[in-house]
Amino acid sequence: MESNYKNESVIENGWFREINTSWDGFSINLKVEEILVQQKSEFQDILIFKSKSFGNVLVLNGIIQCTERDEFTYQEMITHLPMNLHPEPRRVLVVGGGDGGVIREVLKYKSVTEVVLCEIDQMVIDVCKEHLPSMADCLTDPRVTIHTADGAEYVRNNPNQFDVIITDAPDPDGVAADLFKKKYYQELHTCLTEKGLICCQGETVFLDLPVIKEITASCKEIFPSVGYALGNTPTYISGVMGYLLGSKQQNLDFSKPVRRLSDEDLDTMKLRYYTSDVHTTAFNLPNYVRTALKDVVDSCR
Amino acid sequence: MESNYKNESVIENGWFREINTSWDGFSINLKVEEILVQQKSEFQDILIFKSKSFGNVLVLNGIIQCTERDEFTYQEMITHLPMNLHPEPRRVLVVGGGDGGVIREVLKYKSVTEVVLCEIDQMVIDVCKEHLPSMADCLTDPRVTIHTADGAEYVRNNPNQFDVIITDAPDPDGVAADLFKKKYYQELHTCLTEKGLICCQGETVFLDLPVIKEITASCKEIFPSVGYALGNTPTYISGVMGYLLGSKQQNLDFSKPVRRLSDEDLDTMKLRYYTSDVHTTAFNLPNYVRTALKDVVDSCR
Repeated sequence: MESNYKNESVIENGWFREINTSWDGFSINLKVEEILVQQKSEFQDILIFKSKSFGNVLVLNGIIQCTERDEFTYQEMITHLPMNLHPEPRRVLVVGGGDGGVIREVLKYKSVTEVVLCEIDQMVIDVCKEHLPSMADCLTDPRVTIHTADGAEYVRNNPNQFDVIITDAPDPDGVAADLFKKKYYQELHTCLTEKGLICCQGETVFLDLPVIKEITASCKEIFPSVGYALGNTPTYISGVMGYLLGSKQQNLDFSKPVRRLSDEDLDTMKLRYYTSDVHTTAFNLPNYVRTALKDVVDSCR
Repeated sequence: MESNYKNESVIENGWFREINTSWDGFSINLKVEEILVQQKSEFQDILIFKSKSFGNVLVLNGIIQCTERDEFTYQEMITHLPMNLHPEPRRVLVVGGGDGGVIREVLKYKSVTEVVLCEIDQMVIDVCKEHLPSMADCLTDPRVTIHTADGAEYVRNNPNQFDVIITDAPDPDGVAADLFKKKYYQELHTCLTEKGLICCQGETVFLDLPVIKEITASCKEIFPSVGYALGNTPTYISGVMGYLLGSKQQNLDFSKPVRRLSDEDLDTMKLRYYTSDVHTTAFNLPNYVRTALKDVVDSCR
C-alpha cells in the first residue's frame, strides 16, 4: 500500500521539524538527541528518536504520534471518556494504537475481560515494544489479543462484539483515511453491543474545523448520540486534541460519566490528566467550535 | 534597563523559531512572509513579521506575544474571566498589553467608564498601532487613558482606584520579572477597590508548574481568594495558557460568573472563545495540575 501524505518533516541541525500541508506555516519542533528507528514499513515511514526534553518520540509519516512525556494526556482522554460512559465495559476493541498506550489505560478497568488490538502495521508494534516500553509493555497482558490486520475489515467481520471501540488513528491523509468515513462509522455501529460507544481521534479544532464538521456530521448520520470533547496535548499541533464519541443510546448526556472516580481511584489508576470533572468540562467547547458543531454534535450546548 | 533573557530565537530558511531556555528542546515555528519591524527599544527586542498562516505576529525578546489569527483566545480569557466575576466593573487597569487586545475586550462592557493602560514601552504601542490595528485601534477610544510608565510603580502610587486589574505581561525572565512577585500582588491588592479582582498571565502548566506553584502561593498570601484557570492558545508553547486570579472577596467561587452571557450577548460582543460555560469549566484542571496547586489555589477541587 502506498502512503500518499505530503509532509516534508525533517531533522535539521539537531531538531525534528513537523511539517504538514494541512497546517501550512505552523510547526512543532523537538530537539533530537539520538535517532533510534528510521525505517519504511509496508504502510508508512516510521521514526523513533530520543528527544532532549520529551523522552522517546514516535513519528509516523512525519507526524508526531506520541512522546513519553505527554502521551498520558491523550491516552487517558481517548480511553477514559468512553469507558466512563458505559455501565460495565467488558470487551473493548482498539483500532490502530499499536504503541499500546490506549490498551494500558483500558486494562485499568476490572470489568474488562478482553481487549483486542487491531493494528495494521506489525512494525509499529515491534519498534514500540523496544523503544516505548511504558506504553507497549502491557501488550503481553493475558487479557490482550493482537490482530495484525486492517481495522475497518476487522470491524466489518465482527458484528455485535464490543462494548467500547476506540479508534486511535493517525490523521486522515495517509493509511488511516478509511477510518474517518461514514462507511466506517456504520461498521463500528454494527460491531458494538447494545449500549456500546465509540471514541475516535477527532483532529485539532483550531486547524481542521471544516474536516471535523464533515466527520462529525457523518457520525451523526449513524449514531443517535454524538459528542465532541477537547483535551490538551502539548506536542500535538496547536496543543489541543479533539475526541469524537458516538453512542447507540438515545439522548446520552456525554458530560455525565456513569461513575465518578474518587481521589483514591485516581491514585490507584495512576491518572494524571483525567478526572470526573475534567470529563464533564471536556465537552464545553470554545464558542467558535461550539457554533460550528452545534447542528451535528449533541453534546454542544 | 538591560533585559537579561537568554532566548536564541531566530529566523532561518524563512521560518521563525521560538527558543526559550525555560522550555529547552521544544519550539513553535511559524513561516515568515515578511519582516515588518525588527528593532531594539529601551526595554526589549521587538519583532513583528507577517506570517504565512497566522497573520501578523508580535514577538518580544524572542517569545511570541500574539498572532492576529489566535490572539482572541488569550485576550478573551484574560479579560472576561475577571470582568464577569465583578458585579459592576467601572474602572479597569491593564498593566502591560501595549498591543491593545485586552483593552478592546474591556471596552465591550457598558459599565466601564475608564480603562487605564500602563505600558512601559512606548515603542510597543507605536508598532502595534501600525501593524496590529485589529487590536490597537481601540486605544483611541475616549474611555482609554494611556500611561507610558512602569506598571508596578503606577500600581503603587494609585491605591483604591480600580475594580479590575489585568496584568498582561510577558514571561517573568525579562522586563516583566517584578510583575510575578509577592510585593506586586500586595500593591495590586492596595490598588483595588473593595470587591476588586486581579487577573494575570499565569504561564503554561505543562512546562512551568514549579514556577506557577510559587507564583500562586505568593498570591495566596495576599488575596483571600485565589483561582487558576486554563485556556487554549495555539501559538503559545504547549498550546495552553494559565490565568491567575485573585479577589478581595472571601470564599469567592471563581467558577460562577456573576452574569451569564446569552447567545445574543456573545454575538454582540463578538466573542469567539469565551462563553459562560467555558468560564465555569476553565477552573477544572487536569489532575497533575490540580494536585500540584490544590494547597494554594481555592478554585482547585
